Amino acid sequence: MTVDINCDMGESFGLYKMGDDEGIMPFITQANVACGFHASDPNHMRQTVELARTHDVKVGAHFSLPDLAGFGRREMKIDREEMANIILYQIGALKGFLDQAGMELSHLKPHGALYGMAARMEYIAEAVADAAEVYDVPVMGLAGTLHEEVYTRRGGGFLAEFFADLDYDDDGNLIITREHAAVDPQVAASRSVEAVRNGRLTSINGKTLPVRVETICVHSDTPNAVAIAKAVQEGISQLHAA
Amino acid sequence: MTVDINCDMGESFGLYKMGDDEGIMPFITQANVACGFHASDPNHMRQTVELARTHDVKVGAHFSLPDLAGFGRREMKIDREEMANIILYQIGALKGFLDQAGMELSHLKPHGALYGMAARMEYIAEAVADAAEVYDVPVMGLAGTLHEEVYTRRGGGFLAEFFADLDYDDDGNLIITREHAAVDPQVAASRSVEAVRNGRLTSINGKTLPVRVETICVHSDTPNAVAIAKAVQEGISQLHAA
Amino acid sequence: MTVDINCDMGESFGLYKMGDDEGIMPFITQANVACGFHASDPNHMRQTVELARTHDVKVGAHFSLPDLAGFGRREMKIDREEMANIILYQIGALKGFLDQAGMELSHLKPHGALYGMAARMEYIAEAVADAAEVYDVPVMGLAGTLHEEVYTRRGGGFLAEFFADLDYDDDGNLIITREHAAVDPQVAASRSVEAVRNGRLTSINGKTLPVRVETICVHSDTPNAVAIAKAVQEGISQLHAA
Amino acid sequence: MTVDINCDMGESFGLYKMGDDEGIMPFITQANVACGFHASDPNHMRQTVELARTHDVKVGAHFSLPDLAGFGRREMKIDREEMANIILYQIGALKGFLDQAGMELSHLKPHGALYGMAARMEYIAEAVADAAEVYDVPVMGLAGTLHEEVYTRRGGGFLAEFFADLDYDDDGNLIITREHAAVDPQVAASRSVEAVRNGRLTSINGKTLPVRVETICVHSDTPNAVAIAKAVQEGISQLHAA
Repeated sequence: MTVDINCDMGESFGLYKMGDDEGIMPFITQANVACGFHASDPNHMRQTVELARTHDVKVGAHFSLPDLAGFGRREMKIDREEMANIILYQIGALKGFLDQAGMELSHLKPHGALYGMAARMEYIAEAVADAAEVYDVPVMGLAGTLHEEVYTRRGGGFLAEFFADLDYDDDGNLIITREHAAVDPQVAASRSVEAVRNGRLTSINGKTLPVRVETICVHSDTPNAVAIAKAVQEGISQLHAA
Repeated sequence: MTVDINCDMGESFGLYKMGDDEGIMPFITQANVACGFHASDPNHMRQTVELARTHDVKVGAHFSLPDLAGFGRREMKIDREEMANIILYQIGALKGFLDQAGMELSHLKPHGALYGMAARMEYIAEAVADAAEVYDVPVMGLAGTLHEEVYTRRGGGFLAEFFADLDYDDDGNLIITREHAAVDPQVAASRSVEAVRNGRLTSINGKTLPVRVETICVHSDTPNAVAIAKAVQEGISQLHAA
Repeated sequence: MTVDINCDMGESFGLYKMGDDEGIMPFITQANVACGFHASDPNHMRQTVELARTHDVKVGAHFSLPDLAGFGRREMKIDREEMANIILYQIGALKGFLDQAGMELSHLKPHGALYGMAARMEYIAEAVADAAEVYDVPVMGLAGTLHEEVYTRRGGGFLAEFFADLDYDDDGNLIITREHAAVDPQVAASRSVEAVRNGRLTSINGKTLPVRVETICVHSDTPNAVAIAKAVQEGISQLHAA
Repeated sequence: MTVDINCDMGESFGLYKMGDDEGIMPFITQANVACGFHASDPNHMRQTVELARTHDVKVGAHFSLPDLAGFGRREMKIDREEMANIILYQIGALKGFLDQAGMELSHLKPHGALYGMAARMEYIAEAVADAAEVYDVPVMGLAGTLHEEVYTRRGGGFLAEFFADLDYDDDGNLIITREHAAVDPQVAASRSVEAVRNGRLTSINGKTLPVRVETICVHSDTPNAVAIAKAVQEGISQLHAA
């Protein structure tokens, strides 16, 4: 079985830069491209799609709450129908650039606060599934949570995601901080290999927990993001080769 | 030959209402749906697409400059590449709702200031064509102007539009006002019939001018818009029946 | 003691109209002017301030969560410091037009979801007070709730508000709906007189509850808003005259 | 006579960083703080005002066209009255944070495309003056251009600005590029000293031109901005001491 490596991309906005997309793209297989609601704009979306095509990287929609000022990291109360419409709008917008590039939509991944909401709130997970079923593509998420259950029940695909550059608590939940701290690339790589090969991770307190991994996420706004992506890619390549 | 009747639709935003879309939809054949940049939002786009499907009306993208506060009626200086990206984003977003409804994208129509810019500035017409060629659908415009020339040279389709509820000056240019004045429905209908049957219009000063018509535009924010749409539809129906 | 009548005003946006400000202004004493975050824009803010000055109506800032698409009626998770900054920005923006008109800032009133959040969440009430203390003006709210306690503890003023056109439940809470239903103007007027004279209201189930009133709110987007404002103003005038 | 050194500041937005405000603040005397329309947000405006207060730096409003996606560098067609309202809104918003910090508004400076428009288009210069006269503070601009004439005729103050880190053409016009190129700090410093002491500058083609300088602008988004600000400040200090 092949494990993918994914990264949130295209998160620059106007003159504002975020992440080294060109540096990271060579080491990943899935680019989650921002759709203009938490980050990005039409120019950066197009450039990112073209960059992905050059590197033969699959492209998914990385949609968000409508919150550019908060980078999509502030929860908002939006009902299921409106949320589904907000998501569909963003997927469609990204598809415009995929249509232009002659590429297919590969997958979906909610961003930031919406990712967490989908994992905890059934009506949000249903809203994601409402939009996903239009395109029949899988959605990334944390294995064993509510959104896996909802997406799977609805008949859509699910991609279990492991985060190479974040810590987990003793219950297997991600520890999210507003800005990402630097991580040792070799640590991120060995965590990833352990999770893929042996299906387990070590929590921040040293507890061993089971984990299922179909795709590994590296972030582009971690200080040493390119080195992390490179190390994880090498670790996974050796595993695949073995 | 059949002449279409088109109307700009879905221009409400959040709690703000604009136009009586439900009243007008029965009398038109093409709905130009706003894409969120001068008006509309994901909820209204979805509702408008569903309303069009119910009435078997074709749906096109009514894209704009990024200017919600100015309703897309203030010119902005944006270069060709960025403009093409801005347009493609909006077409894609609308396509999300068409994909959901199982409908095809029928046509394109620039909104407000962008419509006028495309008719006068070659790089803007090229930007529209750059986005249009991704979907291979015709673009509405004024016959005999620069944008017809550009769209046609690029190999894309062009739909010559006549405005039933606006005045023309002696050079055949539209007289645009910020808010639309009331028009007598019978006058709008007879103008439309004259333009379609005899290929001519009468300017505001009484001058007779040639005009080519493939689709007739009625506006939804004219005070008596439903009556106008109904009268124009009846006039054109009788012409088709004759 | 004189009771004020207040109304949320200046809630049009660009070409979108909301409320009949010109019709209502003659019947009120306090205009709560929207500040561009849930509604309004610089043009409408200026016009509304000038309209208030013409009618000798006091002007307060009606600030909101940053949510134009949701008219400020969707809750967002924003921490105290950022919320205080968001509020201060809006008050300052309105003060620009008051400075131009040679008027003083009279009071503050949180809008929509923020009004409810301030009544329930201490850190939000503190954020409102953080901004209010810069200008030393009173904040409108529901008597007996958390925000009265916070604003008063902080030494700022508080204005107890009664809603003439909304229903209350048996616990004295407002029953809020997304769009306001029509109300009989005489019913609104007699409710207001009863609340001011006898300090009590009747809940939707007929229960009598105590209420304290320093200002009566009428809404501008209720279908018959002008008639309600006129009836309430006449009722209160007679009371003051008695 | 004392010459000021000014810098555009507070141009970060949400998680997006722009410029090293902390590095530059020690070397300037006037901070032009962005007001949320081309850059900044309530958090960054507050932090920047507090940083300026710490360094005893005067604060002015750096207002813009409403164009966050284009960083205020795309021209828009907006009439005088609306433009004046848009400017007044931004000045007011900044004043909110100045009121909180107990500071006075020192000056005004249009940003980006609006700066150029004010120098060329009379109705835009009048709109700036319409807003400026509410606060009776001077406006920065290029000596000898239309906006100096308009601001001065209206009785408001004018501050003649010299750009230490930009090139001038043979007619004395600034050569503006979308992103600022690196400049040798010593070159920027000696240009500034020459302009202040001898009232002349050297164009990009070596032509000597007269120039009047009351304040020197250094940009925060030039690659080596802190070094430039430091060198200019030292050069001007020595001049003042001499």
